[in-house]
Amino acid sequence: MIKNKKQKGSNAERELIHMLWNEGYAAIRAAGSGSCKYPVPDIIASNGARRIAIECKITKESSKHFYQEEINDLERFCKVFGAEGYIGIKFEKQDWFFFTIEDLRHTKGQNFSISESDSSIKGLTFRQLLGFF
Amino acid sequence: MIKNKKQKGSNAERELIHMLWNEGYAAIRAAGSGSCKYPVPDIIASNGARRIAIECKITKESSKHFYQEEINDLERFCKVFGAEGYIGIKFEKQDWFFFTIEDLRHTKGQNFSISESDSSIKGLTFRQLLGFF
Repeated sequence: MIKNKKQKGSNAERELIHMLWNEGYAAIRAAGSGSCKYPVPDIIASNGARRIAIECKITKESSKHFYQEEINDLERFCKVFGAEGYIGIKFEKQDWFFFTIEDLRHTKGQNFSISESDSSIKGLTFRQLLGFF
Repeated sequence: MIKNKKQKGSNAERELIHMLWNEGYAAIRAAGSGSCKYPVPDIIASNGARRIAIECKITKESSKHFYQEEINDLERFCKVFGAEGYIGIKFEKQDWFFFTIEDLRHTKGQNFSISESDSSIKGLTFRQLLGFF
């Protein structure tokens, strides 16, 4: 069960890697996310001009919980690396939605959740993430 | 045996990740190197100003063989990502040495080897890689 969940997460991340390469970004999945003393986002991508670090969340539920520590780690990584940090959320049978760290900080408390309906209203689509508004 | 070899490689890469963070670079190991249709270097690091992609080689032998395809993949990744590409070589009981793609292209043929003595003479040390000459 845990393996299946992990597998689904990896597949969804691979799909995102593919979408990024298709749009001219070199994108990689990071190893050791969650088992390392340094902050590690799930995906790092760059097209030479813009660098993006994404913490990915895939869920079958209708809302997804976040811990302040995850956001702090993403922010810490991005500050040193020189990247824009995003949380990418994929609800089942939905497309990816993206939130900036600023979005999360300004609208939510310490530990918090983002719902499926929040995402489709307030989240950026993949094309919006890449600046195709 | 294969697992031990892989483990030693991973440990040496983790050591390099640690050295990079210590010098102000956010560094990550990439997942799926060698099992992905897109080019994936072993390590990506950035301090906000400089981005470095490293293909790592660890060996117990006194020389290490390279394939042109590995170098081409590193170059392709770096071109899209906007990173400097390096081959990092670690011979047993030695420190890491680094070669630029240019170094390799200008001095060697298609498939080629780098020896332990070559590395200590022509390779960059870790400090030289980061510009501490």
